[in-house]
Amino acid sequence: MSSIIGYYSTQFGELWKKSLFDLVKESVEGVLKENYIEMKQIDAIFFGNMLSGVLENNLHSSAKLSEIFHTNVSIFRVEAACASGGMAFHLAKQYLDAYSNKTVLVIGAEKMTDYSPEETTDALAAAASEEEQNAGLTFPGLYALMAQAYCERYHYTEEHLAHIAFKNHYHGSLNEKAHFKNKITIEQILKSAYVAHPLKVLDCSPISDGAAALLVTNDSKKTKHKVEILSSEVATDVISLKNRKDLLGLKSVRIATQKAYLQARIKPDQVDVAELHDCFTIAEILAMEDLGFWKKGSGGKMAKELVTMHGKSKKLVVNTSGGLKAAGHPVGATGVKQIGEIFLQLTNQASTRQVKSAEIGLTHNVGGSGGTAVITILRG
Amino acid sequence: MSSIIGYYSTQFGELWKKSLFDLVKESVEGVLKENYIEMKQIDAIFFGNMLSGVLENNLHSSAKLSEIFHTNVSIFRVEAACASGGMAFHLAKQYLDAYSNKTVLVIGAEKMTDYSPEETTDALAAAASEEEQNAGLTFPGLYALMAQAYCERYHYTEEHLAHIAFKNHYHGSLNEKAHFKNKITIEQILKSAYVAHPLKVLDCSPISDGAAALLVTNDSKKTKHKVEILSSEVATDVISLKNRKDLLGLKSVRIATQKAYLQARIKPDQVDVAELHDCFTIAEILAMEDLGFWKKGSGGKMAKELVTMHGKSKKLVVNTSGGLKAAGHPVGATGVKQIGEIFLQLTNQASTRQVKSAEIGLTHNVGGSGGTAVITILRG
Repeated sequence: MSSIIGYYSTQFGELWKKSLFDLVKESVEGVLKENYIEMKQIDAIFFGNMLSGVLENNLHSSAKLSEIFHTNVSIFRVEAACASGGMAFHLAKQYLDAYSNKTVLVIGAEKMTDYSPEETTDALAAAASEEEQNAGLTFPGLYALMAQAYCERYHYTEEHLAHIAFKNHYHGSLNEKAHFKNKITIEQILKSAYVAHPLKVLDCSPISDGAAALLVTNDSKKTKHKVEILSSEVATDVISLKNRKDLLGLKSVRIATQKAYLQARIKPDQVDVAELHDCFTIAEILAMEDLGFWKKGSGGKMAKELVTMHGKSKKLVVNTSGGLKAAGHPVGATGVKQIGEIFLQLTNQASTRQVKSAEIGLTHNVGGSGGTAVITILRG
Repeated sequence: MSSIIGYYSTQFGELWKKSLFDLVKESVEGVLKENYIEMKQIDAIFFGNMLSGVLENNLHSSAKLSEIFHTNVSIFRVEAACASGGMAFHLAKQYLDAYSNKTVLVIGAEKMTDYSPEETTDALAAAASEEEQNAGLTFPGLYALMAQAYCERYHYTEEHLAHIAFKNHYHGSLNEKAHFKNKITIEQILKSAYVAHPLKVLDCSPISDGAAALLVTNDSKKTKHKVEILSSEVATDVISLKNRKDLLGLKSVRIATQKAYLQARIKPDQVDVAELHDCFTIAEILAMEDLGFWKKGSGGKMAKELVTMHGKSKKLVVNTSGGLKAAGHPVGATGVKQIGEIFLQLTNQASTRQVKSAEIGLTHNVGGSGGTAVITILRG
């Protein structure tokens, strides 16, 4: 079985003084140093990044990482929109499933804040369907349609959604690496400006810079910290909302989830901590239902009861990192950071946001508005 | 052991009436139909593409291919500049090394001719080092430096280089899918305009559109055509020429080659057919030496003797497809087409360019000016 043995992330936020590769370098040097591992012990590198080609005409990262790290090993760049990091991790596990006695690096990174909001938003729209792009639908717009459908069907209000942002900002206040470390009130969220009705500014995750790196191995030698990878599963789905049967959840997530629980021999009620892809507040609610944590249609009510909040939850705690909402969303880094946060939780390294006796963790990383989903289940 | 069981490519060339996904669809439908396989039998898809993000703001292919092909399986897009196709194939083999009884699709595609030469050239430069880009070095410029170093060191002339283009255009004339099907003379090549001294227009591969698809499996059920994958190995190297010890070959190629021969238990003199990454004439000469086919420094002389030309060669025949030079170079498709051409040769389906009794084949796919190399060895 393959295990995660180390994790390091940079600060997430608006990091104008650092380039993409500055961030990559910091995360990699951090994880190697903390674990007394040298680059020459690394057998392959898996790199998740979405936008460097579009935003800074920067492609062919395999060669550029070879140059930075003075290595000639296999280096793979994978792109799957906001699921790029999760996909890089998935491919790393696949490599370890194929070959024995190997140790690899998984890196996720994104540099998004050096550009105008229009440039970054246009680049992000590359993950959506051409037809829906041309119709003027942005990502907040796509998730707003899901939020409208969900709230109408189950009679919820913007206040129900707001509790996700409230909880995740509270968690972010406990995470020194978070983009936003400020707590916010339900009133502030409800009073914030609309981006795409019913989603407001404070329902949306930010545009961030950041990088995160994981060390993963199937080498049997003892290590200080070790988290087993029980499963990592991918599913895809049509990207256009208009070609989906309903908007009350994501089919790609449901398929990948089913495979992941089966492979891990785990049931939803065994999960202690989860990092979910809350690009918008509605996304966390839909995810909780798609993952089998909450009954279909109960999500608004459960969200409002803050049942997954640290210090309040009796069982599952969700998005202790602050989620995409407060920890930030440097897209290529997100999937790697999610797994890293679970690693910290399962190895008792999560400081003030530590969930007591957490043993099983899950991550949910989504590309676009559900075209790609990666579900990972880990055991401490 | 994993095997290739089918191959289909679109026409390569200036295909202004077809979009990237039109070409992908044509190649996939072609390979499935010819092999009586349905999409629902496919377990995963590996897609190599370099430029769709930069040129047409088109990312997140996993979701878009899910939509086109009505499938929810794992779909991975990998980008490694001009080695994107070879890397997609490599990851597919890795998947099959990890999991049993699986059948996967490998697709490579690129749409390059709908843009101005400046736009496409700028996008391609994204694979080079930022410093060398800023210094004004283009890809022909980078390979021209290698050509200058090589010709000066071993006392060769432009006429020696020209014979690679002469041979590959002759091969292209035998390949109905080639971008260029015209034979050219040594005199025409030598009289063509300089692009970057000593490389002239007819030393350079073209900008092309095209897609290619392979069916690869480790399912033991019998198939009509079957080519075994003996090895597929990747190595990386610094992308900047100024940080390399010499310009007389590519270190990434030498490292990947050594691993590939070792894994396949094959020696260079056992190879009957090879598809090499002749983005420029000099590249094929350097590759022949790096791959151990020709003695270091003998490449110019051997090229001029046309010892690897179909009908003339007594042993190894190189670039029967026409190579990148004549068959065309839709960058993401190239690595997949190279493997496809070897598949055709090893299954006796290469019509007028068939090499008699070919049993062992090799492909050499390079990203940028040698930052990434993928070497694959196949047995018919």
